[in-house]
Amino acid sequence: MIKIALDAMGGDFAPKEQVEGAMLAIKNIDDIEITLYGRKEEIEKYLKNSERINIVDCRDVIPMGEHNPVHAIRSMTDSSMVKAFRATADKEHDVVVTCGPTQAVVVGAHVIIHRMEGFRRPALAPIIPSLTTGQTVILDCGANLEVRPDQLVQQAQYAVVYSKEVLGKENPSVGLLNIGTEEGKGRDFENECYKALQESGLNFYGNVETKDILEPPTDILISDGFTTNMVVKCMEGTAKSMGKMLKQNLMRGFFGKIGALLSKKNLDRFKKQINPDEVAGGMIFGLKMPLIKAHGSSQSYAVFCALRTAASVVRKDVNNKVQQALLSEKPLGE
Amino acid sequence: MIKIALDAMGGDFAPKEQVEGAMLAIKNIDDIEITLYGRKEEIEKYLKNSERINIVDCRDVIPMGEHNPVHAIRSMTDSSMVKAFRATADKEHDVVVTCGPTQAVVVGAHVIIHRMEGFRRPALAPIIPSLTTGQTVILDCGANLEVRPDQLVQQAQYAVVYSKEVLGKENPSVGLLNIGTEEGKGRDFENECYKALQESGLNFYGNVETKDILEPPTDILISDGFTTNMVVKCMEGTAKSMGKMLKQNLMRGFFGKIGALLSKKNLDRFKKQINPDEVAGGMIFGLKMPLIKAHGSSQSYAVFCALRTAASVVRKDVNNKVQQALLSEKPLGE
Repeated sequence: MIKIALDAMGGDFAPKEQVEGAMLAIKNIDDIEITLYGRKEEIEKYLKNSERINIVDCRDVIPMGEHNPVHAIRSMTDSSMVKAFRATADKEHDVVVTCGPTQAVVVGAHVIIHRMEGFRRPALAPIIPSLTTGQTVILDCGANLEVRPDQLVQQAQYAVVYSKEVLGKENPSVGLLNIGTEEGKGRDFENECYKALQESGLNFYGNVETKDILEPPTDILISDGFTTNMVVKCMEGTAKSMGKMLKQNLMRGFFGKIGALLSKKNLDRFKKQINPDEVAGGMIFGLKMPLIKAHGSSQSYAVFCALRTAASVVRKDVNNKVQQALLSEKPLGE
Repeated sequence: MIKIALDAMGGDFAPKEQVEGAMLAIKNIDDIEITLYGRKEEIEKYLKNSERINIVDCRDVIPMGEHNPVHAIRSMTDSSMVKAFRATADKEHDVVVTCGPTQAVVVGAHVIIHRMEGFRRPALAPIIPSLTTGQTVILDCGANLEVRPDQLVQQAQYAVVYSKEVLGKENPSVGLLNIGTEEGKGRDFENECYKALQESGLNFYGNVETKDILEPPTDILISDGFTTNMVVKCMEGTAKSMGKMLKQNLMRGFFGKIGALLSKKNLDRFKKQINPDEVAGGMIFGLKMPLIKAHGSSQSYAVFCALRTAASVVRKDVNNKVQQALLSEKPLGE
């Protein structure tokens, strides 16, 4: 049995969507059991199935708009997030899932779960849809605003193991996000990373422009935590604003209204395709225990996807595979 | 008469779209005359109206995929871009418009047209659509990958004059692109820029996240040339990929096809809204003479828009207004 801890109070619609997502996961995945961390009475309002689901009562909740994550993680010891992380660090669970506020998750990951031995800078790595390769692992989405090239190479190495084991990609390719495709483009940082990735032994493709973010030539896209965060938020924002513009335009005029109704089913399919809920939870690469961080706005289906990813990471022994490579004779990225 | 120089050979569809755009501008704008720089015989194939349009014959063309822009600008002295820039620097024209390759344009701007006195780092500033404010000036789109905060403040100041005079905005507001809205977010660079903008006397709003790129709370969005370039290309790429996904989805099934046909007019309006062609040419802020750079993929309507912007910049005396502010007792950004 794969033991998953779920922070049931983290997320814009917690604990309802978290509890419903957990029940969905239990129904669809046979080899997991889930422990829900949160206010028992609130969780029980939505929990209709206690098979392979336990509750650990926690009185506190780290709010979604938390401005002082370091203080929150250190002081709110009875919060659902801190208790779920702590129990996972103590190996009561194999993996932990949360939709809580990103910065608190990143701080909690470092302070409570700790870095994997030899892994210098853990990275936040969500998965985004790709028209060319199905799914793209994109990192670092903001765990470290600035990194060194050797640290970025380690992150890329984790992404390769993850893409292979969890996403089933053969010989996953790595692209460096940059302002142009030619070698030599970008800042000193991009040029140093280019060389380091070339020498890493990874399947390095070269530079990839952000105009290809949804149709990249690679399985993995990487940059520093500031840049990737700016780019991913821009992609999400553009998709959202375009949805609004599209709706306004499709509804204009009589024929437009009829047309929009007739193609509603297709439009809904389109919306689902660009919906962040459809995206499996992101993972923090490089911790002692695996941690999946899903969108704060996740609804039950997105929580289910995150739990499914969590199970897969454990089943495929991703963390140990990276850890072994780190401790082997050929250290990663060096 | 406003005298505009147009690099008729720069652009993916040159000179056809450039010549047709020029004719469209002459037809719609009374107080301009245009000089087309390029291969005379190729231009004359498309030119059906010589009223207020002259040709200066140039034998060379800087190709769109130019990899060595510094060498190209220095050696291709008989190219349409170099000759149009040179004549504008010599004040034969009031403004120059090109759809040529961006890096060559940026190099040519520095080497031939030169920086405005006291202006430290010219910036590339396109205009993008905005659901909240109609149009957003976004900079620096790649003229300088890295800048100092005082240089960024000068660029913001130019953007304010431009937004006021050319786009007709009252008291234009400035937003700093960042990974979060709270003060203190981002790298050291963002924090230093935040303080410098606060002290600049400009209408500084604070940080703006890239998820709001198409619905910003401000008239102007600013960051360094690396970051803004990554973000703008991401926005364009996301819009393009979403268009593809939408088309695939709308055309599925019988009712989908009927629906798509019925709402074709509305879909076309939507496409027009997100089409970079609809966007007026970007400008390089901070040169001795104004320079408008439109998309390489511009078609005649986009060339017309760029020429209209060029005329407006001259009519409103934007460059002199910024120059006077720079030379006045209250130097910009200091």
